[in-house]
Formats: sequence, structure tokens, C-alpha cells
Amino acid sequence: MSDFNLDDYVRKVPDFPKKGILFYDITSILAAPVAFKFCIDRMIDIYKDKKIEAIAAIEARGFLFAAPFAERLGIPLIPIRKKGKLPGITLAKKYNLEYGQAEIEVHSADVPKGKRILLTDDLIATGGTLNAARSILIEGGAEVPDIFGVVGLPFLNYKEVLDPTPITTLIDYHSE
Amino acid sequence: MSDFNLDDYVRKVPDFPKKGILFYDITSILAAPVAFKFCIDRMIDIYKDKKIEAIAAIEARGFLFAAPFAERLGIPLIPIRKKGKLPGITLAKKYNLEYGQAEIEVHSADVPKGKRILLTDDLIATGGTLNAARSILIEGGAEVPDIFGVVGLPFLNYKEVLDPTPITTLIDYHSE
Repeated sequence: MSDFNLDDYVRKVPDFPKKGILFYDITSILAAPVAFKFCIDRMIDIYKDKKIEAIAAIEARGFLFAAPFAERLGIPLIPIRKKGKLPGITLAKKYNLEYGQAEIEVHSADVPKGKRILLTDDLIATGGTLNAARSILIEGGAEVPDIFGVVGLPFLNYKEVLDPTPITTLIDYHSE
Repeated sequence: MSDFNLDDYVRKVPDFPKKGILFYDITSILAAPVAFKFCIDRMIDIYKDKKIEAIAAIEARGFLFAAPFAERLGIPLIPIRKKGKLPGITLAKKYNLEYGQAEIEVHSADVPKGKRILLTDDLIATGGTLNAARSILIEGGAEVPDIFGVVGLPFLNYKEVLDPTPITTLIDYHSE
């Protein structure tokens, strides 16, 4: 597949969710099995020798890439969800959005103590949600040696926010 | 794995999301790779000879089982999301909840005309969301020959709501 270009499968939608924002949509990857398989294969290639012991994913789109990865490698998948969705005992973390606050949670019992967790989402923009997620995983006793996103928007400065954790993406875009 | 029992991996949480409701939680399946693989293997076994051409999944937990299935079979995954999450042109459907209304959407361009779509969620309760999802897929020109859920709660009468589509589940519970 030397002529495969992931960019062909990322839908660009102007003015979503509001005017002036160019939205990079990964649901068009899901619609194309060759592109979806490319992403999962690349994730496996990148991480198979990195002693990853579990994968954590931010709902909802992060679940889509983390689930095949977890299933193929036979490692636990830790869902990180918006406040109020997980029924068990949780660790929670508030974080700031452009306007207001959000809060995410993880089941405390699902965080494997002392284990190496790959933290993932479909797209990395400001890094705010991933930063909060990393905090609760570490608070729960795990290590977060790497953060992965299919798409990265480095102009939104996620590298500063997520420093010093290494960040890997499959494709980056440089303007909104 | 003759002594494997999926029930061992479904966490039961009393009084969630409100008093008197026993919540059947599938995130405990994700934490156990043997159980997650069991579910995906069973889905493949059940559907591999049924000419399924795409899988549709309800966000967010439905994504977790549909994604490995789609990736393994090399078929498109069609995400069905709450109103306002999908950036492209959508088909939408309102439906009634116990209190009030909800609305789900699918990207029109993602619905393959004339193709056989397996409609899935993690858990089937009243069937209301799946019923609305089935409507928009059919409105978009697809067929929905089967509905799948990992967990079924048939005492909530989803079979009547989803009639006449065949429904397959891996485990059923008979009281709340």
C-alpha cells in the first residue's frame, strides 16, 4: 500500500462545531476498512515492543481505535468517561474548557497499579482532556509512558500541555 | 474454555443510575481480555456466514464491541451518535425516553444503500434507541437483518419494540 495516504480518509468539515473551526472527522476512516485497518496495524507496530500492559481511551471516539488494539494484543481496555456514566467507584478530575469546566472519571478498580498504560484518543487538540486523564491514571497508581492519537493538531499546543509524556500521532494538521 | 461464564465478567451495580435499578455494567468485560475476546469471537462466529456488509453501533459503549468486529471482518463501521456530534449531513430521529426525548443521528453518506447492516449496542433494554437507529438506517436505504447486544434485558420488552428484526444476545438477565 505504498500509495496509501491516511489524509484521503480524514473528512474536513468547515465551521463545525462553530464558525471558523475546521473539524477533522475520523468517522470517514471507519467507513473505509482499508483505512481503519491501517490505523490499527500502525498502532500495533508502534507499540508492540513497548511493554504496554493496558490501553485507556477517552469516550466516545477514542473507544473506536482502542478497542481493536486491546482485543488484538489481549490487554485490558480502560474507558475514561464523562462524569456520571461509570457506575462503580471512580477517580474523577475536573478540567477547564474554553468556556466552563468538564469532568472525567475512571473506575478505580480498572486502573492496574504499577502497570504501563497507553493513553489514547482519536484526535489530540488542546490536550486538556488527555491531561486530566493522565492525572487520574497516575493518581490511581499506573504509569502513562506514552499518549497516542490518530490525528494531531499541534498548533493547538498539546505538546506543552502533555509534556513530558511522549506523544505519537499518525497524521498531523497544521491549521484550522 | 468449557468453564468460561460471561456472567462472571458482568458487574452488577445496584441503584445506578437511580435507586431501584440494577445496572449491568460491561466495562468489567473490557478489563478482562479473556472475556472481551470471548465476546468478539462469538460475534464473528454468529455473523460470519450471514452476509453482513457493515456494522452500525450506538455510542458510546456500543463502539467498544463493534470496532473489533468491523476491523476483523474488514467491513465499514457506522457510528450512531447523539444529536450534534456528527459534523456532516445527517439523518436524525427523535425518540421517547422515560422522561422526555432524545435524538440520534447518522451520517447520510455512511449508510450503504441496499446493504445488510448489523445493528449493535452493548446492552439491549427497552430497545428505544435501537428502534430509532433501525429507522434511520432503513430510511437511508439500508437493510437491518439482525440486531445484536452483548447483554439483553428481555423483561424490559425490547423484543416487542424491535419486532420483527431477529435479536441475538450473548447473555440475558431476567430481573432488575
